[in-house]
Amino acid sequence: MGGVSQLDKTALSVTVGDVTRELPTVRVGSVGRVPLVEFIGDSAFTNAAAEAMLPLIPEGTEVLLTVVTNALPLAHELSDRSGLPYEVARKKRRTYMQAPLIQEVPSMTLGVSETLWLDGPHAARLKDKRVTIVQDVVASGGTAQALARLVERAGGTVAGYLAAFKQGNSQLPLIYLQELPQSI
Amino acid sequence: MGGVSQLDKTALSVTVGDVTRELPTVRVGSVGRVPLVEFIGDSAFTNAAAEAMLPLIPEGTEVLLTVVTNALPLAHELSDRSGLPYEVARKKRRTYMQAPLIQEVPSMTLGVSETLWLDGPHAARLKDKRVTIVQDVVASGGTAQALARLVERAGGTVAGYLAAFKQGNSQLPLIYLQELPQSI
Repeated sequence: MGGVSQLDKTALSVTVGDVTRELPTVRVGSVGRVPLVEFIGDSAFTNAAAEAMLPLIPEGTEVLLTVVTNALPLAHELSDRSGLPYEVARKKRRTYMQAPLIQEVPSMTLGVSETLWLDGPHAARLKDKRVTIVQDVVASGGTAQALARLVERAGGTVAGYLAAFKQGNSQLPLIYLQELPQSI
Repeated sequence: MGGVSQLDKTALSVTVGDVTRELPTVRVGSVGRVPLVEFIGDSAFTNAAAEAMLPLIPEGTEVLLTVVTNALPLAHELSDRSGLPYEVARKKRRTYMQAPLIQEVPSMTLGVSETLWLDGPHAARLKDKRVTIVQDVVASGGTAQALARLVERAGGTVAGYLAAFKQGNSQLPLIYLQELPQSI
C-alpha cells in the first residue's frame, strides 16, 4: 500500500504501508518548493519504509552501505530486519578515522561540493562483498555514484541501488518505493 | 547483564545484554587511547543498548531529544520500543530549517567549538513537554548541557539525562548503563 498525492503548495501526502505523512515542502533556490522527507525523529515512518523495502533488497546482497544522516535509522532498520550488516559513509572526517577512503561526490543538485569519508576498518568489511547502496531519497544520483565508487575502491561489487524515494531524473538502475515530484 | 573489561592497550571488551563488543581504542591528542563506541553500523549492539536503557527512561518522559550522529539509531530504537516520539538536534545548519534554535556547546573535550541546531517545527514539539536527553556517550557533559538549554528555550522541561555510557567526570545527574575509562 502506498501513494503520493499533492495537497497544496505546502504539503504532499505520502503513504508507505499503513503510515501516512504530510511532507512539508521547503523553498530551494529557484527550483520552487521541494518535499522534505524526514526519517530522523519518526520511528513509525522509518519502520514502514524499511518493511516495504525489505523484499526489494537485491538477491545475493551481503552488506548494505548508506551515508549519514537522514537514511541512518532506515539503514539500521533494514539491517535489523534483513540480518545483513550495514556500513555508513560520513560527510566529515572524524578524528578517529584510520586510512579512510575519501570520495568526492561528482555532481550536486545545489552546486555545493561534498566529500564522503569511509573509515578504513569499515571499508575493509566491503572487500569481496556484494554491496547494496541504501538511501532515503535519490535525486541526481551523484551521491549514489560516489557510494558506488567507494564500494569498488574497497574491493567490493555493487549489487544494486535501493532508495525509499526517487525524486529526479537519475539514470541509475534504482529500486525504490515511490516517486516524489522534484518541485511543486 | 553487562560489564567492561580491558583487554590490552588497543581494545576494551564491553557486554550489554547478550551482545559483547571489543571496542577499538583511538589515540586522541595527548590524552592517550580512548575507547570508541560505534552504534552506527551495528544494529545488534544498538538494539541491546536500547533494550537495556528502556527501563531507565525517567517516569513522566513525553519526548526524547538526541543529537546526531552516533546516537541516532539508538534514539530511533528507544523511540520505537518506548512509543515516545524523539527529536534530533543537528550540528550543521540545514538549508530547509525554519527559525531554528541555535545553541553553542559550552565546553568541548577536544577544544573544538561546536554549535547545535534544532529546526523550528521540531523545537515546537518540545513545548510544555517533559523531555529526556538521550546520548550514546557522555564525557564532559557539555553537549548534554547544550541540549538541556535547547529544551528550556523551546519551552520544555528536562526530565532527565540518559546515556548508554559515561566516560568522564560530568557532574550531571546522568542515568547510564556502564562507565568506560576515559583513557587506557
